[in-house]
Amino acid sequence: MPFRLLLLTLLMVAAAPLCRADDGYRLWLKYDLVADAGQRAQYRAAAQHIAFEGKDAVLQTAATELQRGLQGLLGQPVPVLAKAAAGSTKHGILLEIAPPTNVSGSAQTVLESYRIFSRGAQLVVAGGSGAGVIYGVFALLRQVQTGQPLAGLNVSSRPRIQYRLLNHWDNPNGTVERGYAGSSIWKWNELPQRLDPRYTDYARANASIGLNGVAINNVNASARYLTAEYLQKVKALAGVFRPYGIRVYLSVFWAAPKVIGGLKTADPLDPQVKQWWAAKSEEIYQAIPDFGGFLVKANSEGEPGPQDYGRTHADGANMLAAALGTHDGIVMWRAFVYKAGSGDRFKQAYEDFKLLDGQFAPRVLVQVKNGPIDFQAREPFHPLFGAMPKTPLVLEVQLTQEYLGMATHWVYLAPLFKECLDSDTQTKGPGSTVAKVVDGSLDQHRISGIAGVANIGTDRNWTGHPMAQANWYAFGRLAWDYTLTAKAIATEWTKMTLTREPQAVATIVEVMDKSRDIYVRYTTPLGLHHIMGQNIHYGPEPWLADAGRPDWTAVYYHKADSAGLGFDRTAKGSNALALYSPGVQKEWGDAKTTPLNYLLWFHHVGWRQPLPTGRTLWNELVTRYYTGADSVAWMQRRWATVQPKVDAALFADVAARLQIQQREAVWWRDACVLYFQTFSKQPIPKPFVPPTRTLAEVKTLVDLYQLK
Amino acid sequence: MPFRLLLLTLLMVAAAPLCRADDGYRLWLKYDLVADAGQRAQYRAAAQHIAFEGKDAVLQTAATELQRGLQGLLGQPVPVLAKAAAGSTKHGILLEIAPPTNVSGSAQTVLESYRIFSRGAQLVVAGGSGAGVIYGVFALLRQVQTGQPLAGLNVSSRPRIQYRLLNHWDNPNGTVERGYAGSSIWKWNELPQRLDPRYTDYARANASIGLNGVAINNVNASARYLTAEYLQKVKALAGVFRPYGIRVYLSVFWAAPKVIGGLKTADPLDPQVKQWWAAKSEEIYQAIPDFGGFLVKANSEGEPGPQDYGRTHADGANMLAAALGTHDGIVMWRAFVYKAGSGDRFKQAYEDFKLLDGQFAPRVLVQVKNGPIDFQAREPFHPLFGAMPKTPLVLEVQLTQEYLGMATHWVYLAPLFKECLDSDTQTKGPGSTVAKVVDGSLDQHRISGIAGVANIGTDRNWTGHPMAQANWYAFGRLAWDYTLTAKAIATEWTKMTLTREPQAVATIVEVMDKSRDIYVRYTTPLGLHHIMGQNIHYGPEPWLADAGRPDWTAVYYHKADSAGLGFDRTAKGSNALALYSPGVQKEWGDAKTTPLNYLLWFHHVGWRQPLPTGRTLWNELVTRYYTGADSVAWMQRRWATVQPKVDAALFADVAARLQIQQREAVWWRDACVLYFQTFSKQPIPKPFVPPTRTLAEVKTLVDLYQLK
Repeated sequence: MPFRLLLLTLLMVAAAPLCRADDGYRLWLKYDLVADAGQRAQYRAAAQHIAFEGKDAVLQTAATELQRGLQGLLGQPVPVLAKAAAGSTKHGILLEIAPPTNVSGSAQTVLESYRIFSRGAQLVVAGGSGAGVIYGVFALLRQVQTGQPLAGLNVSSRPRIQYRLLNHWDNPNGTVERGYAGSSIWKWNELPQRLDPRYTDYARANASIGLNGVAINNVNASARYLTAEYLQKVKALAGVFRPYGIRVYLSVFWAAPKVIGGLKTADPLDPQVKQWWAAKSEEIYQAIPDFGGFLVKANSEGEPGPQDYGRTHADGANMLAAALGTHDGIVMWRAFVYKAGSGDRFKQAYEDFKLLDGQFAPRVLVQVKNGPIDFQAREPFHPLFGAMPKTPLVLEVQLTQEYLGMATHWVYLAPLFKECLDSDTQTKGPGSTVAKVVDGSLDQHRISGIAGVANIGTDRNWTGHPMAQANWYAFGRLAWDYTLTAKAIATEWTKMTLTREPQAVATIVEVMDKSRDIYVRYTTPLGLHHIMGQNIHYGPEPWLADAGRPDWTAVYYHKADSAGLGFDRTAKGSNALALYSPGVQKEWGDAKTTPLNYLLWFHHVGWRQPLPTGRTLWNELVTRYYTGADSVAWMQRRWATVQPKVDAALFADVAARLQIQQREAVWWRDACVLYFQTFSKQPIPKPFVPPTRTLAEVKTLVDLYQLK
Repeated sequence: MPFRLLLLTLLMVAAAPLCRADDGYRLWLKYDLVADAGQRAQYRAAAQHIAFEGKDAVLQTAATELQRGLQGLLGQPVPVLAKAAAGSTKHGILLEIAPPTNVSGSAQTVLESYRIFSRGAQLVVAGGSGAGVIYGVFALLRQVQTGQPLAGLNVSSRPRIQYRLLNHWDNPNGTVERGYAGSSIWKWNELPQRLDPRYTDYARANASIGLNGVAINNVNASARYLTAEYLQKVKALAGVFRPYGIRVYLSVFWAAPKVIGGLKTADPLDPQVKQWWAAKSEEIYQAIPDFGGFLVKANSEGEPGPQDYGRTHADGANMLAAALGTHDGIVMWRAFVYKAGSGDRFKQAYEDFKLLDGQFAPRVLVQVKNGPIDFQAREPFHPLFGAMPKTPLVLEVQLTQEYLGMATHWVYLAPLFKECLDSDTQTKGPGSTVAKVVDGSLDQHRISGIAGVANIGTDRNWTGHPMAQANWYAFGRLAWDYTLTAKAIATEWTKMTLTREPQAVATIVEVMDKSRDIYVRYTTPLGLHHIMGQNIHYGPEPWLADAGRPDWTAVYYHKADSAGLGFDRTAKGSNALALYSPGVQKEWGDAKTTPLNYLLWFHHVGWRQPLPTGRTLWNELVTRYYTGADSVAWMQRRWATVQPKVDAALFADVAARLQIQQREAVWWRDACVLYFQTFSKQPIPKPFVPPTRTLAEVKTLVDLYQLK
């Protein structure tokens, strides 16, 4: 025995340098040994076995995951027993499917609900279905991972939103549109024969945060996913996800009946087209009985759609919903549409969709981005929220940081998501929050959904920036329960992922909590928007005036001139404000009462106009750019303090990215203050030191990132 | 102590499922414990310490790598000592820089040479420089990894070719042109602040197989690499590579003086252009003192070049060589050029470059692909080899399997590389092999080079297909010593990477050795070429007749008609054969004496023409397609036998890819025999069973992989 131990030890020493402890692959499911011996002993005493009965595949997955997690956390094997064999006297964990009674809400969320409670010596994790059990198991593991006691645990939880999806903008050639973490994790040429082990770890991660659906391909969709050849590949993925309670959805190419069906038209009212989609849907369900449904980007940014045939979005969506037949699927129809040269882009989705409210079939949800333009660092809530009471609306947010510094800026997005969810549309009086629109409670919808555009790729740590894992995590947690605070989520993620040392946790959470406001400050303060680099959306390009369309420029949005800055969307301007309910209009219609964070979204403000801060617009603008950039240095200092408490490789990684972020924050600051100064003709206010470079120099720097 | 050991053991158990033993990341540098205890004891006795003196960075790297390797292999720490402290009585390994005397050859290859021999109790690894030592150290580790004895070791080695480079076709946006293993491992937005640990492991792998240079960006080059901003990033990479004896090279965009220099022209004879390149070169060397030089694709496939200004390739290359000034750099100018509609593509590089022989400056090498078309599964050697005696020629081969099944076909490429290297150009009589052209010995060149287009990406195992690692490995080993056999290289790679069990090694090596011939059989037997899917080069598309240019179609190359099949390149046809030396012309000019493997490269052969095999062309063609596809099933059966001897995850991965390969081999077979049957009008000969599907059905299958 001593020899064997010695050998093991030697093996470990040998293997150590080759097996990095923390390359980020394990995400928040690290399951490292609980460091505190006393605490560990308590957990061990409570979890001497895992018991369950039945053959439910998700239940079995839950038991396996719990075993894996506890073995890592407790450092000892935890046997999985048949319920009968477990007995009732030894302390253990019992998993059971037991739908709760006396619970209102959609059938699905009841099935997904779980309770954790004690019954004699057993800690029971009871789920409304296998899915409920797996969510309960991950909640239990989280309890241990974050160092909470198990004794007296009595938890009951169910999701507030029914369809909780990641949307992958992954292309068949392996690239990811707006992806900054390597290439697509789906290996289409290997499927269905080869199943990358990563697919399973991906499913585990999603299940652990309560996500139950995945749209696997880009909304700018290829028709090939609907071919028999590719459906076999999709089926293989669905088979990996199913034991984790996750359903597969497909983004569809509207013209598929023409491209792969050989039809002359894709008119949704054409009988042959209807028949083609119905047959295709049937074919899909034969292969994937729990297929989730379709996600559609139509008549947007060059994609074909029903309007090509004089039909409406409702005509298109309803045809697809009918094609689903008796199967349990849905259609998520995206409202992200805007035409070239047809007025304020802010208004276009509203104008296209508002009048269709009431025309959509029961199983259609309209998917609306959080804001009216396109995933800017800060946007007012989309005016469609609250404006389509007869239609369930899916909230679409973006986890991949297309406009938020890609993979080199540390921006925790939960505050952005929360800001939108907590926004009060006032459409049914005060308290008509976006969250209540989305969860269906405001308008008593039977179905509800939320979608996050994934930030996942083949990078070893999944998300490029290690801290961007928190955005995936936070999205799932908020999709489950949007009442959680951004800080609470950051805290549990940090404890599970980075460190349990209290001071370090507090420091990291503080930085996370402020990071998005800091990003806004050094890029688009006071309601500036869409002034980033052309096409690649990297770095500042407020001077961009020539592009394929006016609404792809920057000057279209900031409207800087000698008088002032900002887009007048009041009645004197584009009148986009009229899309909101009267209460919102009243607050945002007056520059004096508009929150400063939204000011330039709605008003063209004079450079010398005093703001509530006591500064003029120009001075406030400059102040925010400078203090924003300075705050990145603060983030660096704060991060430096946690060095002893986090993994060394991870520390170095984040520290290096913060250096980049600091440098690029100064680019943004210099580019923007120098450019806007050409209009304001005013000096940089003290105590700030004017940039040492010229505007031309900054332009050159940004330009080179757009070279072929 | 027992408690500590127990804890370690528990930690190990806990960590085990999270740390896959063999995800392929470690490549052939696994350094797993030597299993045989007796053998291990011998190695331990011989390697009780590592000693060296001096501050040479590469020497220090060599010592660190040796320590790491031995600790893993021997399962015990091996101290690194100063030479003086090591003493002479204890058995250890002494690393020293000691340039050999009495050795001819280029100064650089002498510096890179190494000797391993015993001096008293010490095993000495002596290198001509630090680089020589590191190559010797990896040779020593290979000795242990493959289970060879150290006692009596007496080895002397130096590279036969001076510049041994990987060419990365990596783009600034992170994609890799013709890459099938994820995205680019270079993270440009993170550089120079963040150095991904992967860069170091990449450098280790290259050094371990003797590569000494890396062209880091696509030959379809972005100008941005030449900006001050990007040079800082390149400098950071160079800093990672330098301690491994690896120099950085840049692919340059010919029009850079216009695009980033603000000049009106990129004419190589323009004084301002010359000045711009000279200044740029100086700037590069200020940042990277050991910068290797420039790689250029000009006037090819739409890239700009000196011909845009009525200048020659020599004018362009010589201007760049002059721009290098007194620095130790070279220019590698690619000969891969072909114009639309200007006759047989086979001849064009020759026609453009042959007459320039003698006009290139001393530091210019012309880089020539192994064959005249483009990295087909089998090509005759490029006619430029031997035809430019006054110019050093770099042999360019492709490791990434653009035309060889991407990442789903197991094709060991060393036989392909060897076939080219061993080809006899006969330009200076028998024995004038391509290898002797390339190493410079045939024409007494001072410099020599070889380049492999990398097959590396962010996939965890680097190369997508696990077996494709062997192609990276074999390229390096052959670049060092092209006299090694493909089987010998396969054997050492297999032992280091997969298994040491003799029967399994023999089986795997047998499959590897045959894999390329098998691939040729089921895709392009008898000298067929360029009949793959358009653009993506995936799957068969022999029917392709419409493309942007005639020489991008398939029919241009196979010329199937009712009479027969093949491209007549004799004097009655395009006369491309005239580019070869008389002896080669004689053999290949007559269909009867042309090797069957090259037959259709040079002759249009009647369907009923009898071949030396005793079959007609049609029957031989069908036989090869069928036996080729059947051979993949044979590969599967052979692979199945090694299951107990290789890592389980790796076994499953390769087995699944073989399933895909089998399926796609049948596609190729069916597509090609059904298509060519429309010309031959003859039945599938017995005993082969005709395809059960129609040509239209196979076409549909291939077409869908090209859908948007």
